[in-house]
Amino acid sequence: MAYLENVNSPADVKKLSVKELESLAGEVRAAVLKRDSLIGGHVGPNLGMADAIIALHYVFNSPEDKIVFDVSHQCYPHKILTGRKNGFVNPEDYGKITGYTNPAESAHDHFTIGHTSTSLSLASGLAKARDLKGEKHNVIAVIGDGSLSGGEALEGLDFGGSELNSNFIVVVNDNQMSIAENHGGLYKNLELLRQTNGKAELNLFKALGYDYVYVNDGNDIATLIKAFQSVKDSTKPVVVHLNTNKGKGYAPAEQNKEPWHWSVPFDVESGKPTVDFGAGETYNDITYNLLTDKIKQGENVVLMTAGTPGVFGWNVEKRAALGAHYVDAGIAEEHSVAMASALAKGGCKPVFCVMSSFIQRTYDQLSQDLALNRNPAVILVFWGGLSGADATHLCSFDMAMMSSIPNLVCLAPTNKDEYVAMLNWSLKQDEHPVVIRVPAGAPVAGMVSPIALHRSEVVEQGKGVAIWALGNFMKLGRDVVAALKEKGLAPTLVNPRFYNAVDEALLSELKKNHKLFITLEDGVLDGGYGEKVARFFGASDVRVLAYGGKKEFTDREPVESIYERNRLTVPHILEDVLSLLK
Amino acid sequence: MAYLENVNSPADVKKLSVKELESLAGEVRAAVLKRDSLIGGHVGPNLGMADAIIALHYVFNSPEDKIVFDVSHQCYPHKILTGRKNGFVNPEDYGKITGYTNPAESAHDHFTIGHTSTSLSLASGLAKARDLKGEKHNVIAVIGDGSLSGGEALEGLDFGGSELNSNFIVVVNDNQMSIAENHGGLYKNLELLRQTNGKAELNLFKALGYDYVYVNDGNDIATLIKAFQSVKDSTKPVVVHLNTNKGKGYAPAEQNKEPWHWSVPFDVESGKPTVDFGAGETYNDITYNLLTDKIKQGENVVLMTAGTPGVFGWNVEKRAALGAHYVDAGIAEEHSVAMASALAKGGCKPVFCVMSSFIQRTYDQLSQDLALNRNPAVILVFWGGLSGADATHLCSFDMAMMSSIPNLVCLAPTNKDEYVAMLNWSLKQDEHPVVIRVPAGAPVAGMVSPIALHRSEVVEQGKGVAIWALGNFMKLGRDVVAALKEKGLAPTLVNPRFYNAVDEALLSELKKNHKLFITLEDGVLDGGYGEKVARFFGASDVRVLAYGGKKEFTDREPVESIYERNRLTVPHILEDVLSLLK
Repeated sequence: MAYLENVNSPADVKKLSVKELESLAGEVRAAVLKRDSLIGGHVGPNLGMADAIIALHYVFNSPEDKIVFDVSHQCYPHKILTGRKNGFVNPEDYGKITGYTNPAESAHDHFTIGHTSTSLSLASGLAKARDLKGEKHNVIAVIGDGSLSGGEALEGLDFGGSELNSNFIVVVNDNQMSIAENHGGLYKNLELLRQTNGKAELNLFKALGYDYVYVNDGNDIATLIKAFQSVKDSTKPVVVHLNTNKGKGYAPAEQNKEPWHWSVPFDVESGKPTVDFGAGETYNDITYNLLTDKIKQGENVVLMTAGTPGVFGWNVEKRAALGAHYVDAGIAEEHSVAMASALAKGGCKPVFCVMSSFIQRTYDQLSQDLALNRNPAVILVFWGGLSGADATHLCSFDMAMMSSIPNLVCLAPTNKDEYVAMLNWSLKQDEHPVVIRVPAGAPVAGMVSPIALHRSEVVEQGKGVAIWALGNFMKLGRDVVAALKEKGLAPTLVNPRFYNAVDEALLSELKKNHKLFITLEDGVLDGGYGEKVARFFGASDVRVLAYGGKKEFTDREPVESIYERNRLTVPHILEDVLSLLK
Repeated sequence: MAYLENVNSPADVKKLSVKELESLAGEVRAAVLKRDSLIGGHVGPNLGMADAIIALHYVFNSPEDKIVFDVSHQCYPHKILTGRKNGFVNPEDYGKITGYTNPAESAHDHFTIGHTSTSLSLASGLAKARDLKGEKHNVIAVIGDGSLSGGEALEGLDFGGSELNSNFIVVVNDNQMSIAENHGGLYKNLELLRQTNGKAELNLFKALGYDYVYVNDGNDIATLIKAFQSVKDSTKPVVVHLNTNKGKGYAPAEQNKEPWHWSVPFDVESGKPTVDFGAGETYNDITYNLLTDKIKQGENVVLMTAGTPGVFGWNVEKRAALGAHYVDAGIAEEHSVAMASALAKGGCKPVFCVMSSFIQRTYDQLSQDLALNRNPAVILVFWGGLSGADATHLCSFDMAMMSSIPNLVCLAPTNKDEYVAMLNWSLKQDEHPVVIRVPAGAPVAGMVSPIALHRSEVVEQGKGVAIWALGNFMKLGRDVVAALKEKGLAPTLVNPRFYNAVDEALLSELKKNHKLFITLEDGVLDGGYGEKVARFFGASDVRVLAYGGKKEFTDREPVESIYERNRLTVPHILEDVLSLLK
């Protein structure tokens, strides 16, 4: 901490010699590593970019010069150098600083960002604003090679190469990795540029209108400083292409880059995780095993991901075992949904697996490429539900987003066996594009009746009050039923199964001897399932209480607190029901 | 018609000599021109691609070989050659054939498509399916230069260059135009390639991994045939770059490409429209005048479009007058929303104008780049509402799509003066990203009370029944009120103003002496405004009748029929209300 101790802003970085900056880089890495080892976080990207970020702050004058980080997986060193080192060196302050850029923390951060491929468009807006206002500062977009394959990044790269005609500096952090390995033609070009020390005539960036600077040792601070100085105050768009070493300085992360992109807490010495996830079967296992069984049986199932195979447990071995039945499009969700539609049209059984937060990138592809064409592709949405996640990675909007798209069949299984039945059903039929929201948590066995399109299932027949407990919230539904029984009521419990259309026949049937319907959904209420039920009964004297999440960006709020605020607990629901029945 | 008469399938095309094919091209153009002149449609793209499409069908064997058209603005010649010429030569059959590819019409069409930038991803899915199934046909994606700037296209282009390793033929129809002029760095490269007869080392397509063939005269059938023959059965991804003449063969369209991209019915001889839109002020005028006035007053307002300036009446002169205050990002909606967010962050007043159907491409950018960051950008959504549009260009989903996004403030003005007030309000405040749904139809003056965040406005105070008439449906609301009055009722009329959040205070206030609430919204009901009201009153004895569109892809259905089916008429609503109040 000899140097870091005295670095409280970028001005302090500028006082150091190159040798001292190199020492500082080591201290920054140590701080990143310690925090990651204790609370988890992005490891490889931050270690690999420590040198370049030090050089950026040495050369440029943040926050007057504006550095925009893409996805901000690599922003820890930036945070450490811009007055927030306590969030990295003091374990008691870890919770005060997020893992993503955040303007509420510092004027050195310009956007709250956690989805990829946004920096070029955001930086181009800052550059255009600067020009209109007659200001003169530098605008720098920092983007990883992995993020470059996203449509938004490519739109921004295309725009920036010709439409600004002023200072617009794009720093490409080429660590030869996405989260997993890269996929896409542009990576062939990056490879060619690295092999030719940046001299190849065939140059994607030049083709799009950029000047181009190549830095072969993207972890050498002296070289980096010279490169950034050469483009500072440039009056044209320019790409600075850095060849960096992801995980630099931490042997396990350098040697095994994919699992060290992001890590749960770990022992620094051994590199072994310090949290135990148990050895039980997961929904990842169930999914992979079911789909590979079908492939073995000769079905043309295709497992698809947009750059996040690790989320589904598809490690290198599992991917290799899939052979031609595996497609990683890189970070390209739009392409993936459209391609899935066409694979289905072509007679295959595509299964695109995606985190809830990232399916948000594909509303139009779901609508136009897929649903309008009614091709029987399957989309598995993982991690959907209210959670304690960062505001940038919430997974509570997927169901509401789907609700306005015609032709999509959207399922929310409540247990392992139902998930398997639904996945089999979706692969067997060839009339509908199907979205399945994979349950959260550890798989639990359950009874399953046959799946019928847009038909809900009565789990327990009663009268008076009907609880419609969607997907993950079936357990809450059961608990509410038990509590109501203790109060002498005999509620009906329904598994809605389909979350973007209501079973009108069953609702009408139950209306005969139920006067209160409760809906429970693990997502935002606005646009969600409960509102459909409320509308259905709008003209009748039936009462509907819809439970779910408020429409808001929560930020690392414990999920229990979110449940409490939204009355998503047995005591709250009991109180509401009893008060209403009085 | 000497040749076209005998062409009923691509097999008939193959029987002709090059000379005969050239004559056929003339006949195809005449048919396109006649249909367009009588019912309107895409002019320039179809005239420009007639030769290439004839050559494609001469060389390849559709439908075994699969041709996927991007956006399908250029598919008329394809339709004419594949058994659907009656839809172009017989005016009585025009209505039977859509202006976009459609598998329901023919096995030669593989997707129903009308949004841009989809062909590469869709074709790559067909190619992958072919490979998995061990089939051998050609897969050809046809994409215009304008569509290439869209994120989905760039993701697909990147993917196709390296991930398929098999037959994947991309035909780039470079007519040096988007709908308006092109914007983006890639167009510099296309220009370089044209200037060097395809020989420049700097080649975007080669950089992404494609083989490359350049055709300088993209309207010469003999040359085109040779080029396509040279790539037929290729076992690698290859781009065939055609330099074509948009509007070829029709002098007005060749000379003035932008207005002839798509045209309303016109007189072929003079090129003059045969429909009269009147000379009255439009919402385009109001918008442009208001924003340019602000610019003249020194405000840093920026008018933004993603490739469709014509939709808003921004012709060449109006664009030139805006100077640096105008940004056309090309077809790049995602980039546009993110850039708007950053322009607002940088202290400007961006106003991104977009058709309802295309705002669908930006759910995640609205959520993450814009709403999460609470930057005060303004988005004006045009043409929103139920309509008789083609299934690919429906504008009825925008309000429902917005409903689940936190922090967005979404307004639906009901008249001209309210629109102006809301636009002024949104530009004056700096706390919220604002979406305004520009009213449909001719501007009508109206009274305006001050705008207050998330507060609705009582237009007429009554009791018993409250009509909440959103945006375009205020007129329907007034008509319903008048009809109810005739029946002796004294309904209240409310202008909700904000469509993605309800005014809970006013709803609660009105609840005291109203027992029926009617919501009217010009869009799909699922996820929309009425459902929010229904949920709000779910636990009470208030009745809610929500009127709007069924969640479906309508297709050129007259809007009166859509209204009728959805009971969006005064008699239907009257009947429902009186029946419920009985």
